[in-house]
Amino acid sequence: MQDAGVIEGGAIAIADGIIVDVGPSAAIRANYTAGREVDATGLAVCPGFVDPHTHLVYAGDRVAEFERKMQGVPYLDILRSGGGILSTMRATRAATVEELTVTAQHRLRQMEQLGTTTVEIKTGYGLDTRTECNLLAAIDALAGREPADIVPTFLGAHAVPPEFAGNADGYVALIEDEMLPAAAEWHAASRLAGKPFYCDAFCEANVFDAAQTRTVLEAARTLDFPLKLHADEFVSLGGVSLAVALGATSVDHLDVTPDFDRAVLAASPTMAVVLPAVNFHLGSTHFADARRLIDEGAALAIATDANPGSAPCLSMPFIMALACRYQKLTPAEALNAATINAAYAIGLGDQVGSLAPGKQADLLILDAPDFRHLVYWFGHNLVRNVIKRGQFIV
Amino acid sequence: MQDAGVIEGGAIAIADGIIVDVGPSAAIRANYTAGREVDATGLAVCPGFVDPHTHLVYAGDRVAEFERKMQGVPYLDILRSGGGILSTMRATRAATVEELTVTAQHRLRQMEQLGTTTVEIKTGYGLDTRTECNLLAAIDALAGREPADIVPTFLGAHAVPPEFAGNADGYVALIEDEMLPAAAEWHAASRLAGKPFYCDAFCEANVFDAAQTRTVLEAARTLDFPLKLHADEFVSLGGVSLAVALGATSVDHLDVTPDFDRAVLAASPTMAVVLPAVNFHLGSTHFADARRLIDEGAALAIATDANPGSAPCLSMPFIMALACRYQKLTPAEALNAATINAAYAIGLGDQVGSLAPGKQADLLILDAPDFRHLVYWFGHNLVRNVIKRGQFIV
Repeated sequence: MQDAGVIEGGAIAIADGIIVDVGPSAAIRANYTAGREVDATGLAVCPGFVDPHTHLVYAGDRVAEFERKMQGVPYLDILRSGGGILSTMRATRAATVEELTVTAQHRLRQMEQLGTTTVEIKTGYGLDTRTECNLLAAIDALAGREPADIVPTFLGAHAVPPEFAGNADGYVALIEDEMLPAAAEWHAASRLAGKPFYCDAFCEANVFDAAQTRTVLEAARTLDFPLKLHADEFVSLGGVSLAVALGATSVDHLDVTPDFDRAVLAASPTMAVVLPAVNFHLGSTHFADARRLIDEGAALAIATDANPGSAPCLSMPFIMALACRYQKLTPAEALNAATINAAYAIGLGDQVGSLAPGKQADLLILDAPDFRHLVYWFGHNLVRNVIKRGQFIV
Repeated sequence: MQDAGVIEGGAIAIADGIIVDVGPSAAIRANYTAGREVDATGLAVCPGFVDPHTHLVYAGDRVAEFERKMQGVPYLDILRSGGGILSTMRATRAATVEELTVTAQHRLRQMEQLGTTTVEIKTGYGLDTRTECNLLAAIDALAGREPADIVPTFLGAHAVPPEFAGNADGYVALIEDEMLPAAAEWHAASRLAGKPFYCDAFCEANVFDAAQTRTVLEAARTLDFPLKLHADEFVSLGGVSLAVALGATSVDHLDVTPDFDRAVLAASPTMAVVLPAVNFHLGSTHFADARRLIDEGAALAIATDANPGSAPCLSMPFIMALACRYQKLTPAEALNAATINAAYAIGLGDQVGSLAPGKQADLLILDAPDFRHLVYWFGHNLVRNVIKRGQFIV
């Protein structure tokens, strides 16, 4: 992760949306004749960002709740007055697929302008079969409307809906018996059929315990879903070891992961995904110890966690800037965590995330002479152009 | 500061670049006939941001130094190897006025796109008379090229240049005898003549002590400069009480201000300006106690402190987002700190910073239904349009 693989004065040959060759300009010029040439002299070019953890499709917003939090109102009081994740669930259940699609598309366009060319999107604000399927339908529609590659994730196990209050086991049974088969059926018939489709769960105190999480993920595995897991955001319930034992592609959050589980993760092929926007949004001074994860040998990716409650953030460059400052990543590590490692975190490591021959030509031209400016500056957008599968989209 | 003065369904009447009236749409429509009408239905409108503390004109960058800092290299080692503020001084001395103007203009355009319509810009990377005058000339040129209002500040006392190493008193004498008169002469002949032109100094351990600071500011006052002061960033030398005693318009940083000085400031008309991007850039968990300043009665403004070493940040909305999260401002307080209070911090409180009749028509149309979205979201630009003196500039 220390090596950004910078080529000074480099060039990229692209044909049919695929990278054909990368190297010094003189060598590329000598070997290829370009139908169209794009001059980026003096500007840095890097891979399009891969955002491997988002909750982009939802209705409503949580602005008033944010204001109350800033005024010091405790989160439990906010929950009691109807705020929190269930307020987003209610707004999402009341929305049409088209409303969900249009609002998510507006957000996805912002992400594309900020350089994200591939994005994972989770369900999880429906929490009933009908609405979870609506969220999947919106993701399918989004994939048809925007150029970014989308990797969908079923996250029925995001929270326990009010119909099952005090009966998380009952909700887990519904996920197992009804939702997961419906999600698998959707995938087979969607425009994303044949591509990765994950199952995820939120293993956390007062949400799903380790046994319930295991039930959901094992049921998903039986239906051939690759797995992800939200673990160790507030309380560690052993989610990391569970994720590794089940062969999950990634385990995400890791704010309070104990030493033993960090060692398990470091020794595994499971990707560690950290989400520093959540800590930032809360004004917290505690962040997941990404430095130690890398130093101990884990593969690390970063993501926005874009969602209305805990991370109203669409910008991968800002996440990189945060990770450098509050998680002590170097600029090269932050770039790799936001591109190639993020691609592996969603099963697309062989297709996107680096400027290598045979990969999709997803790349950014920066308004800067050096990729490090991306993390040095913060608060404005240094992405000048976005090229997706060889075509300018920004 | 708690009241953002929101008008639901409001309208603004503008003539000749000046706000004529503000109120409910029905009332405005009944009283005025518009030659041109702009429909912002469903979108929030707020005053253009005023950034009251920047070091926008300089040459070079400090990206490599940032990378070394992130790798844990101590700042003193960076200084010893030629980094730090003196590296920017060397690059700035080597640049032409045109080079300084063009690079600053690029940054100012980014600021305008992020909603800043008025900006204070300090000198202070020249540290000799010729180069400080070059910086003033670049500011003058900028004012002719960009629509933003610019308030210049002479900050010769930003650091002790190498020619005066160990002889800060000698440099202070040069400021008094040569630089301040030259700056005053520049102002009288510039396109900013007749408008506010400040003198500022950096009162800090190993920079300028309280006596040296007083000498600079008293000399400036004799030449009719209004005053500003950098104080209490690392070590408190009593700069706040000095600034208040000298009638400074603002005192800026305030990271380590002791209780006594905070009380002095709260009881004074001097504006407290906090600069949280500096803390963020360092990955620090300590921020100026803006909450307590407000609670004790100080008038508070926020600024980017845009500069290559400690705050590579051009975005006032990001500063607002930081101030809400790490300094516990409410969204309304953050908006007031970034607009009307910031305007008073640079002597323009009667001309810009709020949507009031008689003021310049400097306003933003946001891509959001409510101004609070500006601080709720972070990392992308919610400013859809920027209107400066009644004209769309973005």
